[in-house]
Amino acid sequence: MPMKLNELPTPALVVDLDRLENNIEQMANRADQLGVRLRPHVKTHKCLEIGRMQLAAGAAGITVSTLEEARAFADGGFDDITWAFPVIPSRCEEAAFLAGRVNLGVVVDSREAVAALGAMGFPFKTWLKVDCGYHRAGVAPEGADLGEVARSIVDAGLRFAGILSHSGDAYDVTTDEARAAVAESERATLVSAAARLTTMGIPVPDLSVGSTPAMTAARSLTDVSEARPGNYAYFDRVQVALGSCTLGDCALSVVSSVVSAAAGHSVCDAGALVLSKDDGPADGSMGEVWSEYETHQLDSRLRVVGLSQEHGRLSASVPVGTRLRILPNHACLTSACFGSVHAVRGGDVQATWQVWNER
Amino acid sequence: MPMKLNELPTPALVVDLDRLENNIEQMANRADQLGVRLRPHVKTHKCLEIGRMQLAAGAAGITVSTLEEARAFADGGFDDITWAFPVIPSRCEEAAFLAGRVNLGVVVDSREAVAALGAMGFPFKTWLKVDCGYHRAGVAPEGADLGEVARSIVDAGLRFAGILSHSGDAYDVTTDEARAAVAESERATLVSAAARLTTMGIPVPDLSVGSTPAMTAARSLTDVSEARPGNYAYFDRVQVALGSCTLGDCALSVVSSVVSAAAGHSVCDAGALVLSKDDGPADGSMGEVWSEYETHQLDSRLRVVGLSQEHGRLSASVPVGTRLRILPNHACLTSACFGSVHAVRGGDVQATWQVWNER
Repeated sequence: MPMKLNELPTPALVVDLDRLENNIEQMANRADQLGVRLRPHVKTHKCLEIGRMQLAAGAAGITVSTLEEARAFADGGFDDITWAFPVIPSRCEEAAFLAGRVNLGVVVDSREAVAALGAMGFPFKTWLKVDCGYHRAGVAPEGADLGEVARSIVDAGLRFAGILSHSGDAYDVTTDEARAAVAESERATLVSAAARLTTMGIPVPDLSVGSTPAMTAARSLTDVSEARPGNYAYFDRVQVALGSCTLGDCALSVVSSVVSAAAGHSVCDAGALVLSKDDGPADGSMGEVWSEYETHQLDSRLRVVGLSQEHGRLSASVPVGTRLRILPNHACLTSACFGSVHAVRGGDVQATWQVWNER
Repeated sequence: MPMKLNELPTPALVVDLDRLENNIEQMANRADQLGVRLRPHVKTHKCLEIGRMQLAAGAAGITVSTLEEARAFADGGFDDITWAFPVIPSRCEEAAFLAGRVNLGVVVDSREAVAALGAMGFPFKTWLKVDCGYHRAGVAPEGADLGEVARSIVDAGLRFAGILSHSGDAYDVTTDEARAAVAESERATLVSAAARLTTMGIPVPDLSVGSTPAMTAARSLTDVSEARPGNYAYFDRVQVALGSCTLGDCALSVVSSVVSAAAGHSVCDAGALVLSKDDGPADGSMGEVWSEYETHQLDSRLRVVGLSQEHGRLSASVPVGTRLRILPNHACLTSACFGSVHAVRGGDVQATWQVWNER
């Protein structure tokens, strides 16, 4: 007899299977329409089972953010993995070991990282990260580094996989139009960087872009090879605020219990180590509450307005013992707070999956 | 041959043993001078080894924030544990099972919680939480609930352990004087609540207070039985800002590598899942950097100014491969990001301890 949603000990991480399946299918369709391969970022869920659902829907491999994730998925049978984080020099040996087991792509944006990889004597499949406007990491598309670092990859005996970017700036705008413009700017910048490299005699095998808000709005990805969105599997309050999805697409929630009630507020068992301290849309809400488990609507009277380590402060008084379903601000960080996630359909728990969140 | 600090793969969680030992000794002395038993909150470190050091220094048991912590420490041989979080109704059965193995104290502030405990048919050692000014959880010291919930504990066949508070409001003030005033207000409120209960014919066996900033400033804890500070084992940027400690007391740090460098900033491998998104003193800094591993001084040019899931944005450009030692804003949340912590003395790693952070 399957466990029921309303019997789960709290706090519990829950994914709605109907929505998860729909999100996976919709993004697979979108990648097809845009003519790109999909390489989902599994840092969002860190679940082998969900990664397998994404592969079954046509994904051409996965993206990870840490070597721990890469190892967990390699152990789970995934054999085409991009570690989409600038290589950590002290961990090249671990990366080489893993690259001997599976097809592992690594990312660099500096000569120092290329040298660290080169010193391993292993022909790493190496992506050059290009800054397409987010200004976090990546070589400038117009500068001298683009050609010089690309050439150093080849000279170091590494395999040049192509150029890669992350359109994190799509999180800074709030209309479909603006997200589409970010996606187009990322595409155009990457295509022009590839043209520059080709002119220098460095052929660029592949162009890889990524971010959920850009992928939900992109009009064209002509000349791009693959996309690496991650959050779309779950969606969250941030994505609703951006317009990447509707409330009815949000698949991840935390089931929590009210444990203390005063006149003007109450306290639940979803604190900072359950929801994360991500302030999301920065509207003062650390999480919203679904109305009576009716997950197409939010309870307008009730929000999570403060978090300490294990306490979540609610904006109104609710009786002790009340069970809430909380929509998190940032699904990726909330998911990483838990060692497992319960997959539910309606009121039934159909499976419990490990979240590979170790570090 | 022991591993060296400068050889640890990054990101790595590191505790300085000299400082940890000193912090444990200082707080044990303080509790002695104030005439209270010490029951350290282990949610800060979640390490059996550090808990044992605290017991060896005279602590009279431990405090935990979750049942998972309680179980891990019970399995590790700790037999006197207070779960200092308002009882979660759906988890009373787990609590009863654990209370059959070790001396477990639980906390309530509502009739609903008392009823949930009472339904287990187990004579739980039960603390009544009193709100001494922090206004998060706890019955009001002056209201009718104080006597009514206390009496319901007795009537439900539970063992009334006494009254308990948390001076979280000591985090809202910034001078020794003001923290001492919060500590005195907590003490006086609890003593007067105990007197009210005694008058009603409900004897109060023990009075328990807690918070690191209050304990570092308290002038007197007359009539209080025990204190439950936790953070003091590690200290952090928040405690330095409060004046609870000096920079030279901070025992916890994250060793991180610079992985990408641009003209005006760089990126390290300590992101939100390494440092937590706690904004600490809310001064725009998500972590400070120690000057050249000289841990009595901060590098005034370099701060962590932004966090995404795995990326930490640094305020200045530092060469790729540079190793940094980052002082976190909030040691408890940073510690919980890791599955293990390296105990170092000078440049040597002397031990690696498990952090029991599962949920």
